[in-house]
Amino acid sequence: MNKGKLLYEGKAKRLYATDDPDLLWLEYKDEATAFDGEKKEPLPGKGALNNAISSHFFALLTAHGVAHHFVKKVDGQSQLVRPVNILPLEVVVRAVAAGSICRRLGLREGWELPRPIVEWYYKDDALKDPLVTEEHIRLLQAAEPEQLQHMRREALRIYDILHPFLQRLGVLLVDFKLEFGINAKGQLIVADEVSPDTCRFWDVGSGQKMDKDRFRQGLGGTLDGYREIWKRLQQTAEGGAECTR
Amino acid sequence: MNKGKLLYEGKAKRLYATDDPDLLWLEYKDEATAFDGEKKEPLPGKGALNNAISSHFFALLTAHGVAHHFVKKVDGQSQLVRPVNILPLEVVVRAVAAGSICRRLGLREGWELPRPIVEWYYKDDALKDPLVTEEHIRLLQAAEPEQLQHMRREALRIYDILHPFLQRLGVLLVDFKLEFGINAKGQLIVADEVSPDTCRFWDVGSGQKMDKDRFRQGLGGTLDGYREIWKRLQQTAEGGAECTR
Repeated sequence: MNKGKLLYEGKAKRLYATDDPDLLWLEYKDEATAFDGEKKEPLPGKGALNNAISSHFFALLTAHGVAHHFVKKVDGQSQLVRPVNILPLEVVVRAVAAGSICRRLGLREGWELPRPIVEWYYKDDALKDPLVTEEHIRLLQAAEPEQLQHMRREALRIYDILHPFLQRLGVLLVDFKLEFGINAKGQLIVADEVSPDTCRFWDVGSGQKMDKDRFRQGLGGTLDGYREIWKRLQQTAEGGAECTR
Repeated sequence: MNKGKLLYEGKAKRLYATDDPDLLWLEYKDEATAFDGEKKEPLPGKGALNNAISSHFFALLTAHGVAHHFVKKVDGQSQLVRPVNILPLEVVVRAVAAGSICRRLGLREGWELPRPIVEWYYKDDALKDPLVTEEHIRLLQAAEPEQLQHMRREALRIYDILHPFLQRLGVLLVDFKLEFGINAKGQLIVADEVSPDTCRFWDVGSGQKMDKDRFRQGLGGTLDGYREIWKRLQQTAEGGAECTR
């Protein structure tokens, strides 16, 4: 399998064609960005860590029957994925208050929500990815009501998979962001990545952050957090297969 | 009926006790404010216009069986209302894109929505009244799910009353904001005001704005717009009673 033409370059990943039209080559970049790209820094090693971590989580989701775009890891920074048409939505699941919900609602960081909630953000750089309601999404024709229902259900199911899995590794899953896309068969499946770039992970014991907030907040040691997540994931059988027991 | 002790002073109104514990005295101020009070100006005559206009709309709502706090107009700038515990929510109905939804979603001002939508804003000056989802409202314990359902239904019903009524007066109802409160009997009823401070009114023919956007946007002639609305309302029987035919 060879990397072909560059199809798309995002802030954290590059997407290439391959010889097979049913497979794309997804390469994780060695760069950290935050605040809609306003803060940006080279971070050698980040691509390989996120590729490894995301591959691991996708394998775990496979074991639980969640449909997604991931096929397999092909080299240090790259994985093969199925082509999908990404919906212009970020689907955020929050179990503990952190980040924008604290600023929006005046919540204390670390407050445990009575139950996880789902938020929708409209992916549009010029609008700075605003929070939107389901009525807004219908106005924007960004997704159909049945698609919203499906994504909400899948997002909460993924929380129910990841939360206990991570808890056993001493990691608190604070929140995470998913993206969904429509594959060649017309199915709406999870795409993008599941990594410390898109999840908030706190050490259960110390409360220490092990995710992109270290970079956003200038706490230093960004990659130490990512490495610690990867180290703990490796304690589990490959692809989190132990979790299906 | 006499005006008693000042109970509360907001940006646009003052609320006083009366001799009767079941009645409060609501006085409309001669002052315009916008952008969370950052822009502020005395506007002599505004109080009387909003008192007259709001009284008229509440009478129209009475004729249609909508439960609200308004009792009667008592002098130029004042009306009697029932005491309620206001929920900390702004309930916004939008039929045409204008204001914050244009900035949030990148919509063109004046775009007619396929159907009216409801938005919720959390009333909190320090947080700048953020847009919130129904899940946020439950987190904040700002309202129960059944209360949200009731307010949504009432808000859309009020749109269905006001829209055709205003259309006959050559006024396009672009959007409006309601507040709800719980009265002594535990009923959730419409409170606050219905006026050019809380609604966007555009002249059907010219598209000219006849509401607080004239002040917000520094278009000049703010009160001319309010006067024009009041003039057109007076063409209808008192309290819009003609509308019940």
